[in-house]
Amino acid sequence: MTGSLSIVGLGPGGPAHRTRAAEDAVRDAQVVLGYGGYLASCTDLTGAHQNLVSSEIGAEQQRAEDAVRAAAGGARVALVSSGDAGIYGMASLALTAAAALPPARRPAVRVVPGVTAAIAAGALLGAPLARDFACLTLSDLLASWEAVEIRLRAVAAADLVLALYNPRSRGRAWQLGRARDILAEYRSGDTPVGLVTDAGRAGEQVEITTLAALNPERAGMHTVVIVGAGGTSRLGDWLVTARSLSASR
Amino acid sequence: MTGSLSIVGLGPGGPAHRTRAAEDAVRDAQVVLGYGGYLASCTDLTGAHQNLVSSEIGAEQQRAEDAVRAAAGGARVALVSSGDAGIYGMASLALTAAAALPPARRPAVRVVPGVTAAIAAGALLGAPLARDFACLTLSDLLASWEAVEIRLRAVAAADLVLALYNPRSRGRAWQLGRARDILAEYRSGDTPVGLVTDAGRAGEQVEITTLAALNPERAGMHTVVIVGAGGTSRLGDWLVTARSLSASR
Repeated sequence: MTGSLSIVGLGPGGPAHRTRAAEDAVRDAQVVLGYGGYLASCTDLTGAHQNLVSSEIGAEQQRAEDAVRAAAGGARVALVSSGDAGIYGMASLALTAAAALPPARRPAVRVVPGVTAAIAAGALLGAPLARDFACLTLSDLLASWEAVEIRLRAVAAADLVLALYNPRSRGRAWQLGRARDILAEYRSGDTPVGLVTDAGRAGEQVEITTLAALNPERAGMHTVVIVGAGGTSRLGDWLVTARSLSASR
Repeated sequence: MTGSLSIVGLGPGGPAHRTRAAEDAVRDAQVVLGYGGYLASCTDLTGAHQNLVSSEIGAEQQRAEDAVRAAAGGARVALVSSGDAGIYGMASLALTAAAALPPARRPAVRVVPGVTAAIAAGALLGAPLARDFACLTLSDLLASWEAVEIRLRAVAAADLVLALYNPRSRGRAWQLGRARDILAEYRSGDTPVGLVTDAGRAGEQVEITTLAALNPERAGMHTVVIVGAGGTSRLGDWLVTARSLSASR
């Protein structure tokens, strides 16, 4: 008999922004798989009676296959991601691996939604995502930079608010500066920009700046950068996008 | 002394996809304001000791001002939205109202993030939002249709997955069909499309179709429509977008 696989988004940080369904799925699992840092963020939900399988960043494909294999073998399995597992997370890989099995061997799979990093960052900044936005990743590990740049230009031209995931890492130092320069071809230098690092975790940082003043070195692996659009303004300590859209935009 | 205002996203439906922080904010409030349907969805968190202020759809501006006034007057206030309050929700209006007060009268305001409808819909469909997507509203109550159409064309041309909020209501019957026809200028008729209605609520419906076969009458006030991109395919009962992006896209 096949088991079940829950692909779980743990939200941005600790317990405060986790959903009940996510907590229940981890608590009820016999096997919990995830990147070590994500398993460490939910030790309040796991115990010695569970099989906790930790793996490295970069081992996503193997982790997805391991999770599906354990569930196909009869176990109740939880595969955890931070944020939402469907957005730059593990759900795509795990569902693809499950669909590759013959129907009789496929475990029951469900995706348990979570608060993604852009939403957590938006809440800390105010309401920058209040009307129409795009999420783009600046990682070119799974894409050419040319393909990323085409998307950046399209979003910039359409005056959408933009949430940038994976803006910078040790191995990818220049992409955010290049993205800033591209956006500056379409938007004025005083366009408000928010940077949120480690939302909901120890060391949380929130910074509001402008497109012209955006310093890529302020961003890291755990930063989301939100670039405003025509309707976005700075109100006191908040970044707020108007819900109405003027015809000229 | 001023009080505090929590602008709370309750998630897509009942308790399962609410966060702890959202639940705590509603439980701890002295005054809870919201559209009647949203107050009804969190009666497990509220009680007779609280002042529950229900208002109608369309009264958002008044509700935001009432919430800020109550908090400025010294109360602990929760203003509730479904989904995430920052995305087509109450946060933009309430922060704007709070920022309009003189600093000495401004209450402490925080936004408590929630699972927005696109994420809830994505989880029920599989992993359609796995790489780069845009959220657009088809409502032209606060925008001209021309402005909406410009954004639709930009997103369609950039091959982003698209989550459509407010695709159809009694008073807005033709917009979704028009959006479908515009998208079909850029994407093939067999592009997978998912419709999720009342995610997490009684009567939840999940449907997978194609752009060519998309029937606007299948959508209503509580539907999110997710239109796939080049990397999106139907795998069994799931809609899945690949995490990698080929150079040709």
